[in-house]
Amino acid sequence: MNTTYAYAAPDAASKLAPFELQRRAPRDHDVQMDVLFCGVCHSDLHTARNEWKNTVYPAVPGHEIVGRVTAVGPQVSNYKVGDLVGVGCLVDSCRTCPSCKEGLEQYCEAGFVGTYNGQDRETGENTYGGYSTALVVDEAFVLRVPKNLDPAGVAPLLCAGITTYSPLRQWGAGPGRKVGIVGLGGLGHMGVKLAHAMGAHVVLFTTSTSKIEDAKRLGADEVVISRNPDEMAAHANSFDLIVNTVAAPHDLNPFINLLRRDGTMTLVGAPEHDHPSPQVFNLIMKRRRLAGSLIGGIAETQEMLDFCGEHGITSDIEMIPMQKINDAYERMLKSDVKYRFVIDIDSMRK
Amino acid sequence: MNTTYAYAAPDAASKLAPFELQRRAPRDHDVQMDVLFCGVCHSDLHTARNEWKNTVYPAVPGHEIVGRVTAVGPQVSNYKVGDLVGVGCLVDSCRTCPSCKEGLEQYCEAGFVGTYNGQDRETGENTYGGYSTALVVDEAFVLRVPKNLDPAGVAPLLCAGITTYSPLRQWGAGPGRKVGIVGLGGLGHMGVKLAHAMGAHVVLFTTSTSKIEDAKRLGADEVVISRNPDEMAAHANSFDLIVNTVAAPHDLNPFINLLRRDGTMTLVGAPEHDHPSPQVFNLIMKRRRLAGSLIGGIAETQEMLDFCGEHGITSDIEMIPMQKINDAYERMLKSDVKYRFVIDIDSMRK
Repeated sequence: MNTTYAYAAPDAASKLAPFELQRRAPRDHDVQMDVLFCGVCHSDLHTARNEWKNTVYPAVPGHEIVGRVTAVGPQVSNYKVGDLVGVGCLVDSCRTCPSCKEGLEQYCEAGFVGTYNGQDRETGENTYGGYSTALVVDEAFVLRVPKNLDPAGVAPLLCAGITTYSPLRQWGAGPGRKVGIVGLGGLGHMGVKLAHAMGAHVVLFTTSTSKIEDAKRLGADEVVISRNPDEMAAHANSFDLIVNTVAAPHDLNPFINLLRRDGTMTLVGAPEHDHPSPQVFNLIMKRRRLAGSLIGGIAETQEMLDFCGEHGITSDIEMIPMQKINDAYERMLKSDVKYRFVIDIDSMRK
Repeated sequence: MNTTYAYAAPDAASKLAPFELQRRAPRDHDVQMDVLFCGVCHSDLHTARNEWKNTVYPAVPGHEIVGRVTAVGPQVSNYKVGDLVGVGCLVDSCRTCPSCKEGLEQYCEAGFVGTYNGQDRETGENTYGGYSTALVVDEAFVLRVPKNLDPAGVAPLLCAGITTYSPLRQWGAGPGRKVGIVGLGGLGHMGVKLAHAMGAHVVLFTTSTSKIEDAKRLGADEVVISRNPDEMAAHANSFDLIVNTVAAPHDLNPFINLLRRDGTMTLVGAPEHDHPSPQVFNLIMKRRRLAGSLIGGIAETQEMLDFCGEHGITSDIEMIPMQKINDAYERMLKSDVKYRFVIDIDSMRK
């Protein structure tokens, strides 16, 4: 195979820098692709800097990937050379446990294989992600990208999109349902777009008045400044579902109190330190639920992509060349992006 | 009307003492009853001692009531003199909000009227509970007691029984489902009996080896000593539902980690101080849920009583005369009761 050009973190303290790697020759069920675009997820930064204490170096991040198929293994029937495809957070799983058999590979009981910083089930080698010019992935974990969508704006759907789509579907967002989205970042802005397209009444919670206009443009019916107790009180006991995308530790009680009876608040961001403890009384008095949700399975990710194709939904992005990734990380830490950085992987080919 | 004899807390610092009160003459839809038995719930003690900072004195506790009908209002058609009836935690609600219309009066949006320390919706007067020789309650909040059950053992079903029955039903306890009950006290011992009768595989969690034998007698298929990490680890990712009856603050994570994907742990006890904060990661990784549940509605309470009638289920009780209530409170604080004190109200008539 040809050499693949990539950017890697050599260790936790260093910036990402150019790195060369070899992709495997396609196995029977493999799809080989040129990577075109790769979104920049906060998990990439956590991994590059070993903030989850499990990084194997060198680390090549990237799990919001759109590419063009360049070769397929002899057993591949669903993809052919030239197809526009996507790869998200998972590239393999055990495929035999109950979760895998139900198409919920993200909850694989043996642990799914991450697109980066994972361990290949055949070779045991560390997996390298989408900050690279080429990728080889089993067809069972390859998605089809709708032709009508801008492929760069599709990339973030593979993580930010499915992470919000899945809980919205799981807890029944749709017409007649009032859905809150907490936080207007990469995940939150997708949550607003998707919940709006599903037909729900969408309320965006933010701490910043500067985001009101943008939230409405993205599809929010209402915007609530969550630091304003009066605005919050006006929505007490009224939400069927709140998807909370804020990973920074914060008081959950003001949001739990906005849930109606049997309502659920679903957390999709894992804070480094736990949120302050929620009051049990607030859960008991309305039979409310606090839940978590992790990305989505492969079938649901395809469903999400098709849904986005039907509704013309992509992520709002800021395109960067690979060489700007370290600057992008610093800006991401300041939430200075609307709403997702996407790397133009061609920048490594020129 | 004749004078009703009762025991009341005159203030937060004093012991309960004899007290006389007048019950109202039956209104059109009222059922008047002689109280026969009244269970002793921890809420009684919280209220008597103003531990929830909302007690109106004098306070007459008691909301696990079994009585015999002595008179009915002119519009009452479902009950007649001589019927054996029950009254639980609720004696009224708004009856018009969505929760009330769905038969979930415990979640009444205007707030339900408690059997004691509540406010009568017509007169605004403080309600007096079942530590009394007579009671007058609107028929809509009166339950029918199955004839085949010991009426003293039925009394605790009206709170401890329905508080565990409702979440077991809500989250689908039954054949093929693995259900955990945390704590073997008044609520926990009912949870074990009810979950077993529903056909679930029942695991009782306790910190005390002395409770193993009793838990099995009550219907537990397995008993796990929750302080033993090895015993806990053997049940990782396996529970569909855990009903946690322990109100004392404790670490929820070891129990959350025993839930399978999409499993729920439901809290039915409100601790005075919050539990340590649960780890979000444990919720996210298996789409687990943490919920609360409050007693049950009137229709579900009748369903529970009928279920107990069919399965011959009552509470394990220790009968006391009214005059021993202060001693019983002290013993209850030490969990020195198997598993519920029930007051023989005749002790106030002799």
